[in-house]
Amino acid sequence: MGGYGWISLTTDYGTFDGFVAACHGSIARIAPEVRVIDVTHHVPPADVARGAAVLAQTAPHLPASVHCAVVDPGVGTDRRGIAIGTPDGVLVGPDNGLLVWAAEALGGLATVVELTNPDWFLSGVSRTFHGRDVFAPAAARIAAGAPLADAGPPVDPETVVRLPDPVVTVADGWIESEVMTVDRFGNVQLAAPGDVLAGLGADLLVNGNVRARRGSTFADVDRGDLLVYEDSAGRVAIAVNNGRAVVVLSVRPGDLVRLTPREPA
Amino acid sequence: MGGYGWISLTTDYGTFDGFVAACHGSIARIAPEVRVIDVTHHVPPADVARGAAVLAQTAPHLPASVHCAVVDPGVGTDRRGIAIGTPDGVLVGPDNGLLVWAAEALGGLATVVELTNPDWFLSGVSRTFHGRDVFAPAAARIAAGAPLADAGPPVDPETVVRLPDPVVTVADGWIESEVMTVDRFGNVQLAAPGDVLAGLGADLLVNGNVRARRGSTFADVDRGDLLVYEDSAGRVAIAVNNGRAVVVLSVRPGDLVRLTPREPA
Amino acid sequence: MGGYGWISLTTDYGTFDGFVAACHGSIARIAPEVRVIDVTHHVPPADVARGAAVLAQTAPHLPASVHCAVVDPGVGTDRRGIAIGTPDGVLVGPDNGLLVWAAEALGGLATVVELTNPDWFLSGVSRTFHGRDVFAPAAARIAAGAPLADAGPPVDPETVVRLPDPVVTVADGWIESEVMTVDRFGNVQLAAPGDVLAGLGADLLVNGNVRARRGSTFADVDRGDLLVYEDSAGRVAIAVNNGRAVVVLSVRPGDLVRLTPREPA
Repeated sequence: MGGYGWISLTTDYGTFDGFVAACHGSIARIAPEVRVIDVTHHVPPADVARGAAVLAQTAPHLPASVHCAVVDPGVGTDRRGIAIGTPDGVLVGPDNGLLVWAAEALGGLATVVELTNPDWFLSGVSRTFHGRDVFAPAAARIAAGAPLADAGPPVDPETVVRLPDPVVTVADGWIESEVMTVDRFGNVQLAAPGDVLAGLGADLLVNGNVRARRGSTFADVDRGDLLVYEDSAGRVAIAVNNGRAVVVLSVRPGDLVRLTPREPA
Repeated sequence: MGGYGWISLTTDYGTFDGFVAACHGSIARIAPEVRVIDVTHHVPPADVARGAAVLAQTAPHLPASVHCAVVDPGVGTDRRGIAIGTPDGVLVGPDNGLLVWAAEALGGLATVVELTNPDWFLSGVSRTFHGRDVFAPAAARIAAGAPLADAGPPVDPETVVRLPDPVVTVADGWIESEVMTVDRFGNVQLAAPGDVLAGLGADLLVNGNVRARRGSTFADVDRGDLLVYEDSAGRVAIAVNNGRAVVVLSVRPGDLVRLTPREPA
Repeated sequence: MGGYGWISLTTDYGTFDGFVAACHGSIARIAPEVRVIDVTHHVPPADVARGAAVLAQTAPHLPASVHCAVVDPGVGTDRRGIAIGTPDGVLVGPDNGLLVWAAEALGGLATVVELTNPDWFLSGVSRTFHGRDVFAPAAARIAAGAPLADAGPPVDPETVVRLPDPVVTVADGWIESEVMTVDRFGNVQLAAPGDVLAGLGADLLVNGNVRARRGSTFADVDRGDLLVYEDSAGRVAIAVNNGRAVVVLSVRPGDLVRLTPREPA
């Protein structure tokens, strides 16, 4: 098998310490030809759902890659390390739900193995930094062409840890959905898929009291007004033209947002 | 034509989401051999002038590149996407003034085209993320050797949107200038070019009441004192040795600063 | 000599300006084949000790490299620029203590030269941006295979500027140590090497009043409890399981921390 030319990295390590560079180093020492795309290292510490959401929305836009992700509050416990083979790349990281949404976005969990082969790890694995010592080295070996089966025993995909599905209710003319992410621009992304917008009217209320309009880009509403649209990841999102929807709505990931019809004025 | 080995990226996307990685992905899928230098992704959201200034000051120090820049509050409107050919590289981004200062720093706007060829874009272009779907793919095609003329029809350089020129007044023994940028170290860069320093005395007042001295590096003044110097981008700047000039002067980009002679004590 | 395939960069430049990109540009123009790993650019401005600590803990995990580091409050003064050859790579930067801990981590200061050869610098070296104009170009030349001796005259390693050694006292059943770093997760790393843990009991007090337990990973203590462990850089560190030790202990780099036995309850 030919391996992969690219590895992506997604962590909660931040960029103030040398942790990310050490992971780059582990990769460079094992697979120097492979190139690395940093997805983000600013997942809030231990926020597995946030890491899972960012990775799932980004991975499909990368070349076929080994996606190494580490948001790992259970490092050093008996939580498993796994690699998931999908039709469009491999995911490597802790078995805590971090990888599953991305695996589904890449076509599903075709093969899962547990990372147990000590020859794949750095010698002297630390108890607190598996990104450097376990996951980046494993990603590098897979990118360099090693078969997944060499990493360790197969895992039943049904046993892989999953995060709870976000709450989404689609009804007749209204929807209720968990907030998935809030981005740099303050746009509020819901878990609801963009195609449910077709069932909503043009004039909406957010959470019963904030007016919004359906549209497809920011300038479809006046400056300062709210827009409900399908975002670039294919989900329903709420923006303020030239403003920050997160401030207007005062919500955060996990909160419920309801979009209902607005009576004509 | 041979294309370019390098693409630079300048955006206001931040690094908390996967937006930058998605742009890297668009490039890697179209032009996998090309390497990417990230100029910055921390342009304040929608601050076109800040993006333009950073790019103009950095691009001349990069190898010949396709410079892809996206600070694009008008995404999804009818603002044009353009590519500007210069004697020392190509610039790709929205036609909102972001690219022009850099084009001039690279030798001028030799050729301009509008990005209209749909074959150059990702299929299913989103209305809100042209960095991933339009600009990064176009930059990748140009870097891979595609002629600018294939991107779309020529544009009269006179019609390219320009930011207002920063205000600079050079008089006999004093200058007044808009603040261009404030950097990480709190150094205050003026729009005035460094050569106007020759017309100023050694002992200066900033805005009529703060003492400063002309010099060429921070240690030319005592700790805590103000230095007026030509910075590494060739502009007049004000620093505090071991301190932050921006705090002492309480100015921000766009403010006017006046440098006048100080009477001998 | 064959040079190096990798350059690492460690600076206090931040990522809001184009300074880091300009250093990448200097490297790419001189040694386009060489690849760059960014260690961090978020060293607090002018904090030489922090830069030295991060570099020393990261460099051993990178492939053999030229490590270019710039935390340089003395830029433009007569402080020397140096290159240090070690058994496992070369370090390039200002002679202010920044490079020495890393040199020792890479096997010691085998050869030191002063960077004086003007042919190695960019033409028109600025007085305030030696990262772009002096250090990155020198690192690129060394990576491309130029002998250290071409950079300038040899320097007696005894004359290289050193930071004060951090205070570490190892006594019978207790230790006192300076705080070395605090990481993204709030873990407090001491200067004391991990092997001194063997001389401590399992139940400890931090600074006489905060209870902690020795262990090897976060989950060895209950959520919210303090753990004393050997961290992934081989030093004694203090963490809170699912919390931030730096908040509990209210310490910062340079402070002294004492670990003493706790009487059984």
